[in-house]
Amino acid sequence: MSLDRLIDKIIATQNPTVVGLDPKLEYVPEFIKKKAFCEECENLKGAAKAILKFNKGIIDAICDIVPAIKPQAAYYEMYGHHGVKTLAKTIEYARQKGMYVITDGKRNDIGATMEAYATAHLSKVKVGEEILEPFGADALTVNGYLGTDGISPLLKVCKEEDKGIFVLVKTSNPSSGELQDKLIDGIPVYEVMGRMCEKWGEDLRGKYGYSAVGAVVGATYPEQLKELREKLPHTFFLVPGYGAQGGGAADVAKAFDKNGLGAIVNSSRAVMCAYQKEGCNEEEYAVAALREVIRMKNEICSHIGKIGV
Amino acid sequence: MSLDRLIDKIIATQNPTVVGLDPKLEYVPEFIKKKAFCEECENLKGAAKAILKFNKGIIDAICDIVPAIKPQAAYYEMYGHHGVKTLAKTIEYARQKGMYVITDGKRNDIGATMEAYATAHLSKVKVGEEILEPFGADALTVNGYLGTDGISPLLKVCKEEDKGIFVLVKTSNPSSGELQDKLIDGIPVYEVMGRMCEKWGEDLRGKYGYSAVGAVVGATYPEQLKELREKLPHTFFLVPGYGAQGGGAADVAKAFDKNGLGAIVNSSRAVMCAYQKEGCNEEEYAVAALREVIRMKNEICSHIGKIGV
Repeated sequence: MSLDRLIDKIIATQNPTVVGLDPKLEYVPEFIKKKAFCEECENLKGAAKAILKFNKGIIDAICDIVPAIKPQAAYYEMYGHHGVKTLAKTIEYARQKGMYVITDGKRNDIGATMEAYATAHLSKVKVGEEILEPFGADALTVNGYLGTDGISPLLKVCKEEDKGIFVLVKTSNPSSGELQDKLIDGIPVYEVMGRMCEKWGEDLRGKYGYSAVGAVVGATYPEQLKELREKLPHTFFLVPGYGAQGGGAADVAKAFDKNGLGAIVNSSRAVMCAYQKEGCNEEEYAVAALREVIRMKNEICSHIGKIGV
Repeated sequence: MSLDRLIDKIIATQNPTVVGLDPKLEYVPEFIKKKAFCEECENLKGAAKAILKFNKGIIDAICDIVPAIKPQAAYYEMYGHHGVKTLAKTIEYARQKGMYVITDGKRNDIGATMEAYATAHLSKVKVGEEILEPFGADALTVNGYLGTDGISPLLKVCKEEDKGIFVLVKTSNPSSGELQDKLIDGIPVYEVMGRMCEKWGEDLRGKYGYSAVGAVVGATYPEQLKELREKLPHTFFLVPGYGAQGGGAADVAKAFDKNGLGAIVNSSRAVMCAYQKEGCNEEEYAVAALREVIRMKNEICSHIGKIGV
């Protein structure tokens, strides 16, 4: 009913990072695409097959070193329902390998519909006499623009099924401030949203003090990251924007508490495309991803020290 | 590059309503479920098959009377990738029947990822040498919490492929005011968002004066609906909350301009479950849906008069 399962894995691996699997087809090595297109033709099914193969290779390489993956729903939806099947298969595979899975869907809606999203991504659905798991992630990113009744169905699932959510608070993109930095009674919108996270998570706190309701706070705004870490003591942060988007290790270090807990830092492109950056043989893409994952872990940990109470 | 294609259909049918296809399995008549489960077993594939059959029956019944459908992504994701396939097939079928399709996904993300969502839901993706349409809706609902760079990729698609978006402004749910009614320099958040819609749509206006960037404004807040109709003259409204959620015809009438344009009113449950409410034979579900659609059209039109300039 909290994020303890994730935090346990972070402590066990001494690695507060998550690998974002946002697989544009152009990130997938040619040898994988060639084989998939040969088996399925150049179509959405072929693309989805190539992406699944690519993802599995990365998961195999990193699963003992990295606690979690974060597949971004958009890049799977881009390949239609075949792509969405690859999302489901990627989640299943990573969980089999012991990884914690955060589906990055930024879902949001009114209560009744949010219940459907909660069921889809974190829970189980009844079909006739059968109880089935549509996607089965451990956590889901969500958008709180609709307020409490759009979040409540998720809290129920978090409690009953030991799942988590991450609510968008201060996002990493250049124009995030257009709304999020505006002041409401002297308090920025992102902080208003952050305080709502504290409230939503009040009854869902775990052994480390962090609740099931996390927040997305971008590495590209280190001052806000620091400020929010102090103001939201029970809210665990998912931190995008490290690496390609411009956030450095010293920036993301501000997301952590004195025990090296309180946050998990995401890297997507730098890991998926490590083989391109290295210029190594594309058949080594998974090993190159592993090298980047270790580099990132070491860089971030050098700023935060030993992780755990 | 505007919402003219939708508005043309509204004028042609003299019907400013959209049918929400949010098919929970419990809404689907037993005879359809029984047949689908018999063919596919009681699993996600069987559920998806039943829902597609149900949707097609409703589309067949209403396609000459109603200009648009609005499938809600959550209810398809609830049945896994099979459900998402049914979403794609539902969109395809409705478009073949000449209907305008608004996918209600409330998607949102940073620019690069929003580009993937725009491609997925409104545009085409390149796979090898092939150009393929993953979902192919006419419009998509989105959430603007991330600001301009999270919306820009959609504007590009709207312009190039004559598509539309509807941005959440004032949602219909009870707690929408928690954030949306808060004041920023004396202006409520929903109006700040509404003004952003006007700005985003500036270069995408069509022959009726409305742009490709619409807004979601709930029927459950008639005062705000009236106020926003006056303040956002180029923003077309998608109005949920009529019927089951409590909004009446006099309420939704406030969403329209003096020409009976400016809005489209959604009804989901009342149409899908008309046969349950009527207590008629479940095999008549599609005819019952048609009866409800005509009732709704007449009720709303009695408040707004003839539609069109």
